[in-house]
Amino acid sequence: MIRLRDLLLGRRLANREQAERKIGAWEGVPAMGLDGLGSSAYGPEAALAVLAVLGAAGPKHLGAVMTPIVLLLAVLFASYWQTIRAYPNNGGAYIVSRENLGTSAGLLAAAALMIDYVLNVAVGISAGVGALVSAVPALHPYILPLCLAILAFVTVMNLRGTLDAGRLFAVPTYLFVASFGLVLVLGVWKTVTGGGHPHAAVAPPALHATTQAVSLWLLLRAFAAGCTAMTGVEAVSNGMSAFRDPPVRHGHRTLAAIVIILGLLLVGISLLAHAYGIGAMDQTKDGYRSVLSQLAAAVAGEGVLYYVAIASLLAVLSLSANTSFVDFPRLCRLVASDGFLPKPFAIAGHRLVFSIGIAYLAVTAGVLLVAFGGITDHLIPLFAIGAFLTFTMSQAGMVVHWRRKKRTGERVWLHLAINGVGAVTTGVALLVIVVAKFAEGAWITMLVIPLVIVLLKSIRRYYLRVEQKVHDPTPLSLDSAKPPIVLVAIEDWNLLADHALTLALTLSPQVLGVHLAELGGPDEGYNQKLQERWERNVAVPARAAGFPAPRLVVLQAEYRAIHAPVLQLVRELELQHPDRSVAVLIPELMKQHWYQKLLHTHRARRLRRGLLKHGGTRLTVMSVPWYLEARTLAVAPQEEVGEEGVKKAPDLPVAEDESRREKDRVVV
Amino acid sequence: MIRLRDLLLGRRLANREQAERKIGAWEGVPAMGLDGLGSSAYGPEAALAVLAVLGAAGPKHLGAVMTPIVLLLAVLFASYWQTIRAYPNNGGAYIVSRENLGTSAGLLAAAALMIDYVLNVAVGISAGVGALVSAVPALHPYILPLCLAILAFVTVMNLRGTLDAGRLFAVPTYLFVASFGLVLVLGVWKTVTGGGHPHAAVAPPALHATTQAVSLWLLLRAFAAGCTAMTGVEAVSNGMSAFRDPPVRHGHRTLAAIVIILGLLLVGISLLAHAYGIGAMDQTKDGYRSVLSQLAAAVAGEGVLYYVAIASLLAVLSLSANTSFVDFPRLCRLVASDGFLPKPFAIAGHRLVFSIGIAYLAVTAGVLLVAFGGITDHLIPLFAIGAFLTFTMSQAGMVVHWRRKKRTGERVWLHLAINGVGAVTTGVALLVIVVAKFAEGAWITMLVIPLVIVLLKSIRRYYLRVEQKVHDPTPLSLDSAKPPIVLVAIEDWNLLADHALTLALTLSPQVLGVHLAELGGPDEGYNQKLQERWERNVAVPARAAGFPAPRLVVLQAEYRAIHAPVLQLVRELELQHPDRSVAVLIPELMKQHWYQKLLHTHRARRLRRGLLKHGGTRLTVMSVPWYLEARTLAVAPQEEVGEEGVKKAPDLPVAEDESRREKDRVVV
Repeated sequence: MIRLRDLLLGRRLANREQAERKIGAWEGVPAMGLDGLGSSAYGPEAALAVLAVLGAAGPKHLGAVMTPIVLLLAVLFASYWQTIRAYPNNGGAYIVSRENLGTSAGLLAAAALMIDYVLNVAVGISAGVGALVSAVPALHPYILPLCLAILAFVTVMNLRGTLDAGRLFAVPTYLFVASFGLVLVLGVWKTVTGGGHPHAAVAPPALHATTQAVSLWLLLRAFAAGCTAMTGVEAVSNGMSAFRDPPVRHGHRTLAAIVIILGLLLVGISLLAHAYGIGAMDQTKDGYRSVLSQLAAAVAGEGVLYYVAIASLLAVLSLSANTSFVDFPRLCRLVASDGFLPKPFAIAGHRLVFSIGIAYLAVTAGVLLVAFGGITDHLIPLFAIGAFLTFTMSQAGMVVHWRRKKRTGERVWLHLAINGVGAVTTGVALLVIVVAKFAEGAWITMLVIPLVIVLLKSIRRYYLRVEQKVHDPTPLSLDSAKPPIVLVAIEDWNLLADHALTLALTLSPQVLGVHLAELGGPDEGYNQKLQERWERNVAVPARAAGFPAPRLVVLQAEYRAIHAPVLQLVRELELQHPDRSVAVLIPELMKQHWYQKLLHTHRARRLRRGLLKHGGTRLTVMSVPWYLEARTLAVAPQEEVGEEGVKKAPDLPVAEDESRREKDRVVV
Repeated sequence: MIRLRDLLLGRRLANREQAERKIGAWEGVPAMGLDGLGSSAYGPEAALAVLAVLGAAGPKHLGAVMTPIVLLLAVLFASYWQTIRAYPNNGGAYIVSRENLGTSAGLLAAAALMIDYVLNVAVGISAGVGALVSAVPALHPYILPLCLAILAFVTVMNLRGTLDAGRLFAVPTYLFVASFGLVLVLGVWKTVTGGGHPHAAVAPPALHATTQAVSLWLLLRAFAAGCTAMTGVEAVSNGMSAFRDPPVRHGHRTLAAIVIILGLLLVGISLLAHAYGIGAMDQTKDGYRSVLSQLAAAVAGEGVLYYVAIASLLAVLSLSANTSFVDFPRLCRLVASDGFLPKPFAIAGHRLVFSIGIAYLAVTAGVLLVAFGGITDHLIPLFAIGAFLTFTMSQAGMVVHWRRKKRTGERVWLHLAINGVGAVTTGVALLVIVVAKFAEGAWITMLVIPLVIVLLKSIRRYYLRVEQKVHDPTPLSLDSAKPPIVLVAIEDWNLLADHALTLALTLSPQVLGVHLAELGGPDEGYNQKLQERWERNVAVPARAAGFPAPRLVVLQAEYRAIHAPVLQLVRELELQHPDRSVAVLIPELMKQHWYQKLLHTHRARRLRRGLLKHGGTRLTVMSVPWYLEARTLAVAPQEEVGEEGVKKAPDLPVAEDESRREKDRVVV
């Protein structure tokens, strides 16, 4: 029988297969780069939108805004290049900050990153669907279903593994790079041959005349808006654990590919927007077309190239969430390994990726999408701040890293300079963004980050407390170890009772059968025949075999709560025998078919749960299973056992001095 | 802390409180009679609707239709009167048929009744809401929510117990009886003083002139339609277990009250509809008013009495589902006790009513309401057939009952005659209904009933098979009983491991520690320090105390499935030691707060579940709980333990011949 899970996610992977599941640069660019590459679509557009008040003069000032952004990108490139080399396992902001700036700084970076990644999924998908819908207006009523379908698709692909996602998403990624590369080359050639004033194949909408003078504040705001073009550059450093050996080389190649392609796209777009006089249109109005759509149409006309370029752009935008799906679970895994997130985040799942992190990301982003109806524009100001905060912290951490190295006598001044410039410039950019976007929503991020840090720290405190409470510095103390008093829950005399009682008699000299009367209600009474059967089937043969004969105790289940009367009895036994523990044996008919769950009363399970919940450390519960369909030998599914076959069982311990041991066993 | 359940349903009742929870006739009429009394609203209306083709002559023929119905009602009254006396515990169609006509007949009656009860809930509530909405048209958009709200309310009241429901619903019931009684008395008085032609306070809409001749087929169809007025008369016989001692007296009183009130209402309505010339209006048209609404307005004008009467009528109609909620769970309980329904139907719940039956009824009726959008007119033809089938079977069963008594020499001819007349007349009515309503949907019922019977029988077969499979005719066989090989699952050296190992050493001379490596994924490795701690903390002290030193086995969890490598080891041990069983001890940190469920990995629970699912009868699983917050003494909630306080614990068995017993314990 093929399980649905295997069909959807592929077969379960063994731990030893991990190496084969790692990726190189070819899959790395689609897996981690879509966020960065997609930024080329909205970074320049966001800057042009701010410059729109300048009318026709707007595109002319785009160069002044994009030049520092491209320079900043170059600084980040150099910085992350050396971060990757310094931290080949994971050079994410969390690790770099934690190692160099301390745990609190690490948590600050982690909180900012986590918020950033969740928002990136919601914003990325809804931006992609928004672009799709403005291209195909007939899809307008289906915005939310489309968003959720893409979310589900990206989630499943990532649950299959980063390798699978990277391979599949390579198709739209490289199509996008090729087609827009061609558009830009063509446009630049036309601009050069046209003496700076190329003829537009499809003329972009005319911009209104300039009515306002350029101000520094306007340019700063445009810069802050344009900075979104840089988000996603940090992705490679956070996802280093995905690369195969040698990780540094594959990481460097991936980073270089992403940043160089992104840089060329930004430069090309800025040049051509200026040359063709392309501005941002109002998204809320009918007939809106994105900057890249205007640009591709102006350069190439609305032919095959245009449609291929726009289609691949839509795919890249829609899938930009993939970067979060690669990095977020890896970040959470590191944070969880340090005890600041629940442990399940650190457990490799069905396909050796951290499934809990992926699932958490999908659910949170899904909730955001549903809450905002698939239109998450309001969230955009919230998330640039997180990206630049982590940029700055990562760079600052690297500065400290190099200063330490310097003290050991290494020659690191170039490294120090690069990361220093990185830290200062991203810090300044962060300040600009905070100021420019504070009122628009950046304040929410600044409020949420400390709350997340408090949560992370309290999780860690909980784990520390648990560790202290279960810490055991002393060796086993067996001086007063006595076998427990064993109670066997008996519903009727049958094979289950027989089996459990036989076992019980081998475990302890003190065995009691426990039968509950009126468990089903006042009319049920108790099993009258049981007492006489007990004498014949249990007491007599036990005595004959030399065991102390177990008695049958009948308890009233006055409130039909199965565990209550048993607990009452356990409490009495514990009071009267302070040196003994109590074990309750529960015969359980195992359900091997779904319909059996409807037909049985689940009393065994409820008794076990009730006893474990309300009992104490002196009470243990033993499930004695019985199977209607023969299952004499434990057989696990082949896949889960592995292919080693049956190995030799380990030798069992042998009593060296049996008489002495038996002497210590207590008989009341 | 007050639990939500206790707040909603009241405190949990003890078995010994059952007697106080039983009802008398005063609560019996509202609890079981609303279905019957509500019938007075739609029985005559249904007959008049068929007669509507006759126009103004229609109401004049109502007497011809209602007279046999009232006579039939009288026959049923007499019949059920003696059924109740003959079966004071439960004289429902299921028991009477099973006892006298055989199991298959009993199942036929049970299936018909069960379908009938489910349909009655959906139809009763939607009819009540339909009447409410036609009185207050502003509520029209809320039909389905209103239906579901009433369903939820009736469900909760019945989960509280029949007594609670009966007491609360007494208010609208007796208000309805009083107000309509007054309307009818007033109407009859006006008719008599008006010489048979009373003046209408509010004139009913004029009926069109007669265009069609009366035919026998028309009268038969009107009779079949009017027969719905009788449904609900059987309710008392099915719900006998709800009455306090002496049940026969309270049952008789309840039955008499219901039937006499219903009979008077039917007679009065028929007379006054004739006298005032009131016909049925088309429900699908605007301005529709029910027959009873026209009648009350014609007699009393639209004053206080009119509004009280109509309001209480709406309440009675909406709550008529209560009859099903009283009887259905009791019927299911009997069927389940015989093994034809899942056992949970036979278990008394929180308030000593059969909660599973109530919940099942509520869910099924809720699904029907949602599926039909709260308008269940289409279901009406489906359910009269069920009622008359059970009438007939019950009467036929009683005939057999009396014939048996006759053979013993008792003088039973009057009883025999009454039930014989009942069987024949209800049988004829059943035939008429089947023929008249076959195409309208009665065929569906006739198709579903056999399917239900097949289901009931296969459930019984399953239980019989289980019983055979666990049947154990032989006493305990202890000759080869040896203690199990004990495996202790060890995650780390801590108090949990210490506690479990101490216990393990008292249970068996053969103890192995089992540690799983790479359980969290390929990067986790295994706990290196554990092996050295094991030697120091376990092996050395065990040897010192004279126990065979347990070894630590490290297994690879190649697929991160916690149970698989342990099962593999168990399989090897079972193969090499065919005379031994294996017990796995699992230390478990108990979650005492909700947030702990998020923070832990639930490995203990998953290991237990996996081992029990895939293991065999030779493998047992022992949960060794550990509590972070001290819980040294098992304390159950006071309410659930009862107020008896701590009783003396039973004496433990004492080994009579310890040396002989110990000799039989095996050491490998």
